[in-house]
Amino acid sequence: MAQLIADKRDIDFVLHEQMNIGAEYKGSTYAEFNRKTIDLIIGEARNLGIKELLPLQKVSDGGCVFDAGTVTVPDGFKRAYDLYRDGEWLGMSDDPEWGGQGLPHAVSMAANEYFYGSCNSFMLYNMLTHGAAKLVEGFGTDVQKKQCLKKMFSGEWSGTMLLTEPEAGSDVGAMATVATKNDDGTYNISGSKIFISGGEHNMVENIIHPVLARIEGAPEGTRGISLFLVPKFLINEDGTLGDFNDVVCTGIEEKMGLHGNCTCSLTLGGKGACVGTLLGEENKGMAAMFVMMNEARQMVGLQGFANATASYVHALNYARGRIQTKGLTDPAGSAPVAIINHPDVKRQLLIMKSYVDGMRSLIYYGGLCHDKIAMAATAEERAEYSLLLEVLTPIIKGYITDKAFEVCSHGIQIFGGYGFVEEFPVAQLLRDSRIFMIYEGTNGIQSMDLLGRKLGMKKGKPFMDYLAIVQKSIAQAKEIEELAPLAETMEGFFARYTEVAAAISKAAMSDKVLDAYSFSHPFLEVTGDLTMAWMLLWRATVAAPLTGKKKDAAFYKGQITTARFFINTILPTSMGRMNAIETCDGAVAAMDDAGFGAK
Amino acid sequence: MAQLIADKRDIDFVLHEQMNIGAEYKGSTYAEFNRKTIDLIIGEARNLGIKELLPLQKVSDGGCVFDAGTVTVPDGFKRAYDLYRDGEWLGMSDDPEWGGQGLPHAVSMAANEYFYGSCNSFMLYNMLTHGAAKLVEGFGTDVQKKQCLKKMFSGEWSGTMLLTEPEAGSDVGAMATVATKNDDGTYNISGSKIFISGGEHNMVENIIHPVLARIEGAPEGTRGISLFLVPKFLINEDGTLGDFNDVVCTGIEEKMGLHGNCTCSLTLGGKGACVGTLLGEENKGMAAMFVMMNEARQMVGLQGFANATASYVHALNYARGRIQTKGLTDPAGSAPVAIINHPDVKRQLLIMKSYVDGMRSLIYYGGLCHDKIAMAATAEERAEYSLLLEVLTPIIKGYITDKAFEVCSHGIQIFGGYGFVEEFPVAQLLRDSRIFMIYEGTNGIQSMDLLGRKLGMKKGKPFMDYLAIVQKSIAQAKEIEELAPLAETMEGFFARYTEVAAAISKAAMSDKVLDAYSFSHPFLEVTGDLTMAWMLLWRATVAAPLTGKKKDAAFYKGQITTARFFINTILPTSMGRMNAIETCDGAVAAMDDAGFGAK
Repeated sequence: MAQLIADKRDIDFVLHEQMNIGAEYKGSTYAEFNRKTIDLIIGEARNLGIKELLPLQKVSDGGCVFDAGTVTVPDGFKRAYDLYRDGEWLGMSDDPEWGGQGLPHAVSMAANEYFYGSCNSFMLYNMLTHGAAKLVEGFGTDVQKKQCLKKMFSGEWSGTMLLTEPEAGSDVGAMATVATKNDDGTYNISGSKIFISGGEHNMVENIIHPVLARIEGAPEGTRGISLFLVPKFLINEDGTLGDFNDVVCTGIEEKMGLHGNCTCSLTLGGKGACVGTLLGEENKGMAAMFVMMNEARQMVGLQGFANATASYVHALNYARGRIQTKGLTDPAGSAPVAIINHPDVKRQLLIMKSYVDGMRSLIYYGGLCHDKIAMAATAEERAEYSLLLEVLTPIIKGYITDKAFEVCSHGIQIFGGYGFVEEFPVAQLLRDSRIFMIYEGTNGIQSMDLLGRKLGMKKGKPFMDYLAIVQKSIAQAKEIEELAPLAETMEGFFARYTEVAAAISKAAMSDKVLDAYSFSHPFLEVTGDLTMAWMLLWRATVAAPLTGKKKDAAFYKGQITTARFFINTILPTSMGRMNAIETCDGAVAAMDDAGFGAK
Repeated sequence: MAQLIADKRDIDFVLHEQMNIGAEYKGSTYAEFNRKTIDLIIGEARNLGIKELLPLQKVSDGGCVFDAGTVTVPDGFKRAYDLYRDGEWLGMSDDPEWGGQGLPHAVSMAANEYFYGSCNSFMLYNMLTHGAAKLVEGFGTDVQKKQCLKKMFSGEWSGTMLLTEPEAGSDVGAMATVATKNDDGTYNISGSKIFISGGEHNMVENIIHPVLARIEGAPEGTRGISLFLVPKFLINEDGTLGDFNDVVCTGIEEKMGLHGNCTCSLTLGGKGACVGTLLGEENKGMAAMFVMMNEARQMVGLQGFANATASYVHALNYARGRIQTKGLTDPAGSAPVAIINHPDVKRQLLIMKSYVDGMRSLIYYGGLCHDKIAMAATAEERAEYSLLLEVLTPIIKGYITDKAFEVCSHGIQIFGGYGFVEEFPVAQLLRDSRIFMIYEGTNGIQSMDLLGRKLGMKKGKPFMDYLAIVQKSIAQAKEIEELAPLAETMEGFFARYTEVAAAISKAAMSDKVLDAYSFSHPFLEVTGDLTMAWMLLWRATVAAPLTGKKKDAAFYKGQITTARFFINTILPTSMGRMNAIETCDGAVAAMDDAGFGAK
């Protein structure tokens, strides 16, 4: 049977063979999760995805309706929302104390691959609710937690993130929303926010808005920003809903994609009656925000990946069914064949597969890191995996969403003219995926984060630890005769990478700082390429001993061929890119504004 | 004043300084076109573009309306169509005998940059009419020409191209439309065609459809395909319109972009009453079609370029106006600046500029080749430039439209969140541009055309001639002290390119043919990179002596910095890609269908 969202066999492979998560969880707090229970959970997620969420995807493209301050989500969203709630999926890997299900994070990634791959715009409502709930869990007072958490993790109420303003996007410090302290310790909030996903909608009775604002008299820039909890309806002491809290939706954006998720403009305190409570400490809003941001960035990586994997599955099904003559590559003029046999189509499918496979492994590995943190016996171990995740975050967010867009574009190309027609699913997957490169920190910002923060963080130790893990994988592959040539090529690439990372890191701390940062994005790209190659080689190492098996021999061989393709075809280009990074030519800095012309 | 569609100064530069077209035309059939007349013409085109076509772009996104066989174009299209006709722009570079204006082609490219950059979906109607008219001009009988040509070149009637069928896309030979000869020498046509741009609409009183069909009993495949002229309304001997010719529009596609141009499904002879006349010889339809296809492919390259240049101008204007702090790259925390000063934004603008500049030069150079053919004194000279154009065509179509999509994506990225919002123009430019990589031969087919036909055509002489032109340009740059280092890098790239071209060419004729074709697209990419670098170096060579001028010094310096950026930053990556091509690893061929998974 053709797969509809994601490749089930490959999900099994990553969880149970590559990561071997059952063994990881043995004897830990996750001990109850063996292969059987895990597969049962993922099977349920798959069912919900295919039966209830996938049918929303096409409908979602019709968008939400704004009318006099209200937003109505597309038909079917509310029903699916309730089913998703009934399954208790929103808090699946959260603390049971607050209504969570306590599932391992790696398992939740697999479930989410089905959910997000089915309908990303629907899932974004849940993603933001979860992020907001984590903020309350991490920084809230007992009262705030008690009032909100169970209702958020259960999806009874939803959550958002109010950050962006018209003049303050990436430049968060420029924001103008003001908080004025009241005698009772609450704050009056006043300002306008834009680009608020799910800022107002008709699926829940209350929406909890974490809001970044500046307390009157606070320092300028990001050091004077505080975080507030602002509900749409005030919450009475007994937990019932009180008055409307003067958070007014003034409109929604008409976008290029992701139409099912409303992007709202909100005015807070337009009538002077918007009240919030401080979340965390005064002027420490940015730090709190970054905690949430890291999770959100990892989830945006998953969003991109989910569209990429869906596009791959569609393109593969199409290429297997579309019969055409081979043209130039078959001058003998033999009978028409499925276009999967045409070299350029096959090349594109291998590009798609290698990225999608590598992304899946990376995303699930990120989930496993979260699990390692949860299972850690010592603070050191916890810190080790937290820092590893911090290193991986700009790669997961920035690199994956860049490549997901490319993968989705190949999906369209394989469909040919049909790819441009909205009757087929690949055009929407591309349109929807374009925002992932922008929100939760543009990919330019991700690349600056990698170069400017993550590379040198804690004297470079976490980054070196990451490289050591990759190196160990390469050494393991080298032990396998069939993989030794690939491992050696990869070894050369790795050695070159460490040189280039050292060079750009040094340049970034010298007077060549602006030149270095003009290569931060190319550096993110080669770092991502290294990470993909690592994952694919690791997969091949696991698969190599199994290619003799009767069952799944083609699957295991496919792992090796995919690694071969990536290492022999994609990495050489990346090698060239590394040469450019190392040279670190100053053309960008040398270019005058007027030199760009068009004035 | 901010430019709205394209950079006027750069258009002047390419025509008058880089190509020096006035000197080219001196003493030729184009002698009347001096700088003054040329600028006058382009100025008029610019006015029409800005005032009448640009306002259509947003409106066009609303799409056409299909109702019971009729198609209504967006509001304002008809008015603009009439103004475009009044200006006699459709046949601007065509034979005055048939109502053309006889302008040089290079000049028409500049005019078209404004027209297509303003509203590509509007221009596509005219582009297809022109292509169809060229078919009639090239292959029509005297009667066919007399009946149709003046009305088509004037835009009184429009034209199309009926090629694709549901089961015959890239695989044209699989088509099933049938032509049955009548006693009077005409043919009854019967079949269904899809993806017909402008197949039916309300801007003209008649539409001329060149139709590919198979005469009963003709050989299988492409060798049995003939071309027919099928008008929507039959044409009486006196030129007036006769009966409806049973060409029925059964629907239009809902697409990802280019909504202003209707993509029609047409049924011919559903009531047995569709009559056509043979255009050219029996069973020679494909050859005729390829004549038109070459022009169409060059125009699709221009379509992509036009969106890229528009996106660049928008992104540049935005980056100059958007003020934000510099963040990590300015730890001193100095005052916010326009984001054009942020390294990653500037990098992206330079990527956009280098491609857009290179594309403009290449497109105009293609126009100049057409002019050289028109001005040629000998058949040899005519053949030389025709063959050069044939070599350039897959680069113009395939490479430019690939890169145009990338450029448009950078345009969105520079706008940040606003880029995803349809209120701003960059999202539509990206959506509209995605089809250019597919129609008139997918870019995979372009890459096969380059490798399989153009490289070895006439024993490789035209391709070698092309390389000799590039080499000459490099030698000229080397003479200029300031450019010598860039020219030397370029020389190394060029030398490597010739090796790799020889290697893949050899592989394509060996038993590694399938491996070679799995690298045809990467080979098209490096060929395009070479072409861009050549154009940018040529520009720098022209600009270098002028950087001391008071007027425009920044512009000329910008030319050199752009060449520097491309050669030192983009070409190294391309070098790496060439290594992969030369290695020509067989991973793609080695991959089994089952290895792709997801069954």
